Formats: sequence, C-alpha cells, structure tokens
Amino acid sequence: MAVSLAGTENAEDRNLEAEMTALGRRARAAAARLADAPTDAKNEALRAAAAALRADAELILAANRRDLATATGRTMTPAMIDRLTLDPRRIEAMAVGLEEVAALPDPVGLIDSVVSRPNGLQIEKVRVPLGVIGIIYESRPNVTADAAALCLKAGNAAILRGGSESAQSSAAILAALARGLEAAGLPADAVQRVPSQDRAAVGLMLRLDQYIDVIIPRGGKSLIERVAAEARIPVLKHLDGICHVYVDKAADLAKARAIVLNAKLRRTGVCGAAETLLVDRPVAASHLVPILADLIAAGCEIRGDAATQALDDRVKPATEEDWSTEYLAPILSVRIVDGVDAAIAHIAAYGSQHTDSIVTEDAAAAERFLARVDSAIVIHNASTQFADGGEFGMGAEIGISTGRLHARGPVGVAELTSYKYRVRGTGQIRP
Amino acid sequence: MAVSLAGTENAEDRNLEAEMTALGRRARAAAARLADAPTDAKNEALRAAAAALRADAELILAANRRDLATATGRTMTPAMIDRLTLDPRRIEAMAVGLEEVAALPDPVGLIDSVVSRPNGLQIEKVRVPLGVIGIIYESRPNVTADAAALCLKAGNAAILRGGSESAQSSAAILAALARGLEAAGLPADAVQRVPSQDRAAVGLMLRLDQYIDVIIPRGGKSLIERVAAEARIPVLKHLDGICHVYVDKAADLAKARAIVLNAKLRRTGVCGAAETLLVDRPVAASHLVPILADLIAAGCEIRGDAATQALDDRVKPATEEDWSTEYLAPILSVRIVDGVDAAIAHIAAYGSQHTDSIVTEDAAAAERFLARVDSAIVIHNASTQFADGGEFGMGAEIGISTGRLHARGPVGVAELTSYKYRVRGTGQIRP
Repeated sequence: MAVSLAGTENAEDRNLEAEMTALGRRARAAAARLADAPTDAKNEALRAAAAALRADAELILAANRRDLATATGRTMTPAMIDRLTLDPRRIEAMAVGLEEVAALPDPVGLIDSVVSRPNGLQIEKVRVPLGVIGIIYESRPNVTADAAALCLKAGNAAILRGGSESAQSSAAILAALARGLEAAGLPADAVQRVPSQDRAAVGLMLRLDQYIDVIIPRGGKSLIERVAAEARIPVLKHLDGICHVYVDKAADLAKARAIVLNAKLRRTGVCGAAETLLVDRPVAASHLVPILADLIAAGCEIRGDAATQALDDRVKPATEEDWSTEYLAPILSVRIVDGVDAAIAHIAAYGSQHTDSIVTEDAAAAERFLARVDSAIVIHNASTQFADGGEFGMGAEIGISTGRLHARGPVGVAELTSYKYRVRGTGQIRP
Repeated sequence: MAVSLAGTENAEDRNLEAEMTALGRRARAAAARLADAPTDAKNEALRAAAAALRADAELILAANRRDLATATGRTMTPAMIDRLTLDPRRIEAMAVGLEEVAALPDPVGLIDSVVSRPNGLQIEKVRVPLGVIGIIYESRPNVTADAAALCLKAGNAAILRGGSESAQSSAAILAALARGLEAAGLPADAVQRVPSQDRAAVGLMLRLDQYIDVIIPRGGKSLIERVAAEARIPVLKHLDGICHVYVDKAADLAKARAIVLNAKLRRTGVCGAAETLLVDRPVAASHLVPILADLIAAGCEIRGDAATQALDDRVKPATEEDWSTEYLAPILSVRIVDGVDAAIAHIAAYGSQHTDSIVTEDAAAAERFLARVDSAIVIHNASTQFADGGEFGMGAEIGISTGRLHARGPVGVAELTSYKYRVRGTGQIRP
C-alpha cells in the first residue's frame, strides 16, 4: 500500500505512540499508589463514584444520545443498539454495581500460606495487585464502570479501550469515576480511557508491555484473534462458550426438562447459555421427545442429527458447523450419542472448555463426566447458566476465562491479583 | 533476502510444519491420558526413568562426548562448555532428581476450596494439569530430565526444545525417560523433543496454540525477547535476576557482612545472586568499608558510585549501565543511598522484580521494604541466594518466574497445574 502523505502519517503515528506511552506511564504511577491504598480509601472511591454516576445521570444520558445518533448512521444490528443504549435504570444498575464491589472483601494483603523452614526462615505468600490491566471491549458502555470497579478493588490501575460507538458515553462515565477517585484521595489516573479511536491505538496498547501487565479482551472472535496475534502482554482469554448439556440414560426426566429449558432459554445471549444438547440413545424417546416439545413451544429452533430429526419433524438438519457454533440465540443443536464416553468425546472435539453439564442419577457416570470433561466449569444436575461469578459467590466478575493460565472460569476480584513471597530471617545465609 | 531455491525451501517448511503439528497432536493425546493417570503410575514412571538413566549412563556420556566434539568447533565460552558437559556425577544427580520428584506430593486432584451456595449447589475448585508445556532451553542437557520430571508429576505432557549444542545428549536422556514412561504404562509421547535444530522450528512451536498450553523459556535475553515477540501461547517468563541487597543504617554489621558475601559469591551464576549492593549513607564508613574488604579479598570486582569509590581505591567506577546489568560473575555494583525509600526507588528503577533483601534491625524499615518492593521475593535479614524452589519447600523448581500472571517466584509442581470448578446440584435451574 502506497502512503501518499507519509510525513503527516508518521507524525500522527509518533503522536499516538507518545500519547499511549504517556497513558501507560501515568497508569504505572497510579498503580504504585493503589497497591498501598487502604481498603477504606478504595471503598470510599467506589461509593463516591456511584454517587457521581447518579449525579451525572443526565450528562451521561445526553452523551449516550450523541453516541446513538452517530450509531444510527452505521450498520448496527438491533442487538448492538440495545447494548449501546443507556437509560436511567441502567445507570442506577452501574451505580449499585460499584457499591456492591465496595462491599466485597479486599483480596490484597490476604496470606495464602505461611511456611516455616528448618533454617528458621518464615515464608509468607501474600496477595498483591496485578498492576496495570488493559481492557479492550466493544459496545456496552457499562463495562467502563464494571471493569474499572473490579480492577480498583484489587488495587490495579485500568486502561480501558471501548468501542468507538460508545466513546461519548464512556467518557462521561469515566468523568464520574475520576471524581470518585479524587474524593477518596486516590489518583484519577487509576482509571483511564484510550482517547484515540484509531485502530492503531489498540496495536500500540498490545505492545505496551513496559506499562501494562495483563490484557483482558471482551468481545467477538475477531477482537480475540487480533489480541492473540499482536499482544506482547499476557492475555486473560474470554473466548466463546460452546456449552453442552448431556442427558444421560439415568437422567431424571423432570430435572432434564427443567435444566435443558433453563440452560438454553433463560438468557440466550450469555456465554453460559447451552448451545448443544447431547442425549443418550436409550432415552431418546422418553426424554428427548418431551424436551424438544418444550423447547419448540418456547420458540427455540432445533438443529438435530438424523436420529433427532426422526423424533420430531420440526427439527432442522444440523451441519458439521453447528456443533462448533455459539448461537447466542434461541437455536439449539441436538445430537443423540451412545453413553457418557461418547458425550465426553463430542465435548472434547467441539466444546470451548467453558461450561458443560450432565443430567443423571447415576453417580458413577456423573463423576466420570466431571473428571474427564476438560472445561473451566463442569456441572452435575444443574443448569449451565450458573456459569457466573455472582453465582459462584465472587460478588462480581469481569468475565469467564477459557484459558488455563492464572484464572480459569469466573474472574472476580481475587483473580485480578498476583502474589509475592515475604521472607523473614535472622541473618540466614545459604550453605 | 532472495530465496534461490524457493521450491525446495517451501517443501522443507511444509515438512517441518507437518512434523511440528504431528508432535503437538501426539502431546495433546498423551496429556489427555496423563491427566487421569494415578499418582502411583506417574511415580513409577519417574523411578523407572531414574533407573534407565543409570543403566544408560555410558550411552549418555558417549552422546555427550559427540556434542562436546562438535562444540569445540564453535565459539563457546568455558562456562558454556561446563554447562554442556556431563559426567557420571551429573547423571547420578539427574537420576536422584527424578526420584525426588517421585517423592513429592501429587498436586493434581487437590481441592483448593469448597463453597456451598444458598441454592444448594456445591462448588469445588480442584487442581488439574495445565496440559501441554513447551520448554525452550539452551545448553544444559540436564534440563531435559529435570523439566520433564516436573511436568510429568503435575500430569502435563512436555515438548522440549533444547539447544543444538546438546542435541545428542538430550536425545540419549530422552530415550531413557521414554523407557521409564513405558515401564509404568504411560505414553512415551508424554515427553517429546523437537527433533529439528532448525531455528524455524522454534517459531512454529511458538505458534502451536492449538496443542501447547504454555511456553516456558529458559535462557538468555535474546531467547526471552524472541519468545515474547513471537509467541501466540501464554508464556511463563523467566527473566534476569537483578537482585539487590540493601544494608540499612540499622543493620547489624555481622549479619550484613555475612549476607552480602553469601548473596554475591556463594554461587555467582544463579539468578538469585545479588548484582547490586545499596548501602545507607550513615553506615558507609562503619559497614561498607569492611564489606568491600571482604568482597575484594574473596576476588570480587567492585563497581561503585563516587561515594563508594572514595571509600576504597580498588573500587572501579560504575556506569549507568551497571545498575541494570546481571553479571552472573564475581562483580558487584555498589551505591550509597539515603535511607530505605531511596533504596526502594533504586530497585523500582533498575530491578527485575526477582529477589531483593534488606538487612536491618529496624522492624519498621523492614516492613516498609517488604511491602513496597514489588518483586517476586522480598527478604528481611537473609541472603538473596535463598531464591530457590527447594529452599521454599517446593522440592524442585523449573525456574523463578518474574511475570505476575499465574506463577510468580519459584515454579514447582503446584505452579504447573491449573484448576477447574466441579459443581454438584440436585436439579437447580437459574432464576
């Protein structure tokens, strides 16, 4: 590609790079102050930020209307518009979210273990903040408040890069958060936005390894893939949730019907929603037939293998692609399998190591499934929609990690910390 | 660069890529079997591998002599030749190392926490293997056995890429390990070597994200930087150890002398060796003068700031670069500072977040240092050379992580695991 205005572009590139470096440096300085901040100061900042969000509600809604006005000129789906839209109820929910994070226990300073060595050294493993967290997200402006609150509670500075479509809303929300931080005597730089909407800013952010300790991408596959390809910084992956429910031959029918309906349809747009139903062949007639009837009556489209299609003529044929598709919609792929091992093999081949559930009264089959399905969350006799930090008792979460390093499953405030070893001696030297 | 034999090279590239993919696929299959392997089988494999190493000692030494014969034709330092050289004592040490790992507790299956939720769900957080671990290392052939043993104990498959200079030795060691695995009924593919010495093989390995879960690089800065730039797989960083000892004005002189001498000179080639000494100005005359005399008498070169040079005319001038240099040699940089906060600021500016120690009898100064120095290991009144998994009670380690995600400080078998959540219900659906 020829660059006609090379000089200008290079100057712009240099400006953007300088701006991102300055952002990183400020975040690092803020993180050093936050690492030492007392729990009370962090909680006060969160509560003051909640008050500021409520006080600024009209300003935030006006900014959101400007974002929406710009958005209507673009190709956005109704779901995207819905995610972008704020209203007084959603602002109040953000404020309550901040207060809930203030009420959580502070993970920083907790001691994981203490070891006394034969030479007299006392070794403590103590929780410390991760440092600076970069969060890259798409259209939901409320992520600005939710993610910043969790980072702050764990003593981390945050650099947020939201979608351009929510830029005005995010800036207005951030202004309220900054007032909360300042009211508590904490640095406003603890939460910063990448001001540039230039795509190159994300590339620079992914290379700021001197200033950012971890990147958390929240968004679609193309974002996640760009991050994986370009990041020089560790990434906490939040990939898709291709979640399965397996109905075993020893499944209780009433439980199976309730769990499948809930796992698929309670909310179809969450990552813990079931996308594939696997049913053990001996109970295809007894269990799958009423389950299909329930789902179809509730408005769910069914894409099944040949054996499933034979049970109900409203079932559409499933293609190979269906088994690895995250619909996030009222669509379910259904396959009849031969026993728990076949279900485990299907999940190993097509799943995304997120959340998978078995419905059975056979304890041995349940234990086999829980042991052999290699997913962040494995469930016996309950809905996959419990895949949520709140439901796990974490209070709030920044997402569900599908990676295996550092955090797996729900990422709450505890998962946003690291640790260090404090060693106390009396003059020991090593022989 | 023009490629004259493009056709041939492409075919070679394709072969290498196919070979690496096949290696990854075999590792993934082996990891699935190891994840379920009983503790006894893993331990039996380790003990059988130790026996095979002893039985193969002559073969391994012959292979090592071939490596050494090739090495003498290259530009290798005496230290590199020493690291490459095996002898009967080093082979016995490898065998004993395998037996020691067999004797460690199995981290897989340990339950970190159990939560009972108000809705009746029981949520267990249970340790599982990481999966497939890729280890890239330089000349020490014993890493082949040590790293493989730790990976195996934690239920992981390993893909090892050693330096070309140790290729024959590593292949001979690996053959013994494979016999141990097979004797215990475990897949020999649980430990594999990258057979190609082509530099491109490392590049392919760093992109095998479908088959490798984590990369552990062990080597010099150029290796670490290449890995950071190219890896699409999470990396457990093992950067340099620019470790500091700070002698506070309230330091006990005898402790300070013993700790500094040990921290610098016990072994100079380990990452926990001190590289910089910081001394509080009020005790420069009383403490630093005898410490300098001790070090110089023991053959250590001193590079000091102007104030240090004024104390002893054998002190050479330190340059700015010295403060961020990992000598791994009997050389120490020395700086006189004004109090604990100046020491903390120096460490923040020049340290590598590895291991730093304060010598003082002032409890408040010690606590300030332990809280504010942001390193994996912070020590009060003991030598930095305790930075070692064995000294921490972990039994053995694969290295010291200087990253903040997943594992920080010594990486032992527990740090080579991940976790998953096992949820047990009685038919719960989410409201």
